[in-house]
Amino acid sequence: MRKSIVGVIGGHFCSGETNELAERLGAALSETADTMVCGGLGGVMESACRGFRKEGKLTIGIIPGYNKEDANHFVDVVIPTGMGLARNLLVVKSADVVVALPGRSGTLSEIAYCLQFDIPVISLNSWDIPGVIKAETIPEAVEKVREILEKQSSCEQLR
Amino acid sequence: MRKSIVGVIGGHFCSGETNELAERLGAALSETADTMVCGGLGGVMESACRGFRKEGKLTIGIIPGYNKEDANHFVDVVIPTGMGLARNLLVVKSADVVVALPGRSGTLSEIAYCLQFDIPVISLNSWDIPGVIKAETIPEAVEKVREILEKQSSCEQLR
Amino acid sequence: MRKSIVGVIGGHFCSGETNELAERLGAALSETADTMVCGGLGGVMESACRGFRKEGKLTIGIIPGYNKEDANHFVDVVIPTGMGLARNLLVVKSADVVVALPGRSGTLSEIAYCLQFDIPVISLNSWDIPGVIKAETIPEAVEKVREILEKQSSCEQLR
Amino acid sequence: MRKSIVGVIGGHFCSGETNELAERLGAALSETADTMVCGGLGGVMESACRGFRKEGKLTIGIIPGYNKEDANHFVDVVIPTGMGLARNLLVVKSADVVVALPGRSGTLSEIAYCLQFDIPVISLNSWDIPGVIKAETIPEAVEKVREILEKQSSCEQLR
Repeated sequence: MRKSIVGVIGGHFCSGETNELAERLGAALSETADTMVCGGLGGVMESACRGFRKEGKLTIGIIPGYNKEDANHFVDVVIPTGMGLARNLLVVKSADVVVALPGRSGTLSEIAYCLQFDIPVISLNSWDIPGVIKAETIPEAVEKVREILEKQSSCEQLR
Repeated sequence: MRKSIVGVIGGHFCSGETNELAERLGAALSETADTMVCGGLGGVMESACRGFRKEGKLTIGIIPGYNKEDANHFVDVVIPTGMGLARNLLVVKSADVVVALPGRSGTLSEIAYCLQFDIPVISLNSWDIPGVIKAETIPEAVEKVREILEKQSSCEQLR
Repeated sequence: MRKSIVGVIGGHFCSGETNELAERLGAALSETADTMVCGGLGGVMESACRGFRKEGKLTIGIIPGYNKEDANHFVDVVIPTGMGLARNLLVVKSADVVVALPGRSGTLSEIAYCLQFDIPVISLNSWDIPGVIKAETIPEAVEKVREILEKQSSCEQLR
Repeated sequence: MRKSIVGVIGGHFCSGETNELAERLGAALSETADTMVCGGLGGVMESACRGFRKEGKLTIGIIPGYNKEDANHFVDVVIPTGMGLARNLLVVKSADVVVALPGRSGTLSEIAYCLQFDIPVISLNSWDIPGVIKAETIPEAVEKVREILEKQSSCEQLR
């Protein structure tokens, strides 16, 4: 059965505070989605994977290089693209909804791709670009993810 | 925990006989690997997914286009690349070992990428190129997959 | 001999005013660079190519699809990627310096890639993101392009 | 005006004999086509570029990495893809006709993509796969290239 997938994006290098935010976000999202996709490396990506992992939940890391060992230890399924940063597009396209945490131009390019493809993107202390959905807290972000996934799921059943 | 992943490649358009072979191969592989990756479309890809799917097993489809609905109904996780046939490289790089069924030039490009990246590739009635591992029957192919995955797993534990 | 390459980015759908701006920019840039690269389609891309083309100057279009005939008529060399919008990264990476004209999220993703790769990007009535170089007029934009290309060229000779 | 483009593929590591063949092939092809595209690195690619280069002729190198300096010195226009070996597809798709020289699995993947996209591919001492056009000598290969380009050009004028 098609899995619902939440994407988490944000900086590879980030503050301890942002890492903690990412881990708590991951844990909260695992109550709502079966599968999490991210860029598979360190920083926000690693912390979110660590938080998300529990019995029956799956983390996917779509990494820039060719070497599966570049992925962080909390990734269950590694997709090694060898495409470098162009893999950013694959990360967001694989997601049904995306949560953006603080990050720099890499995160900005991922937000831009979300907007371009009409993938809902929730900004939690990240870039404030016209079109993003803003959230102030983890529970608020997760609630928005839940609403979006439910709406998508009911649309699919209608087809 | 990092999942072991078997890849299945072969034609999008294929005979009923090849479809049946693919489905029986998928069913046999699900005894050996947790996760199967393929190109996510019809023909061999769809039949192998249908065979592989059972409780707790996961099928991944790395598709050429942007639209998740292009994937066959037996894919659990869709990676929509929008890369067209350049996605063939991603399919094989995501696998720890690959089984090739009959197919044309697309399958040949995937076998070539396996050889280039030293990904073991077992040819079951498919292209006979120097470097591929030949198998005559499904049990023989699956046995080779099992041996390769076990060897890779024991190497990882040594590290 | 390695060609100097200027990139022009901006909307596929745009106003008549922006089209005119793009064509005049293309004409002005052809005094400064040998080669222009763009996304190869319509709107800003087509107008800039039309302006840039003259004796001995070369336009390159890196297009999203597989069909060379999708490129506009003013492209000399078509690179058909079949990668969809992920080709945006290739457009900016092929350039030594980029001028951004008005555009939407596609243009934003290209600006983000410039920032990520330290490719100088001049915004002429386009997105105002920290890190872009702003220009108010075509001569101002072209003068900045000339300075950047000269500086890069003198650095290369030092190596 | 749209340029006619010939592609040359073959090994990155190759014998001195193959290098010489590639340089002589490049020189002969420059009498027939305006533009040559290749993978931009060493071996066959470098030798063919060296041979092809002369007044008014253009060499394009579509390289796997992000760094233009990875291209050989005889490439005029570098397209840095950052896609790794998935860039092989872009090399052949950019060509109107391809000549394959000796090479290993990378060359095989490129031949497979030619077959998949109906791009005529001439094998000069390279892989002998059903569908390739075989040539024994450089003049024979170049004559076939000329015929194919002329036929394509006359078809375009009919449209």
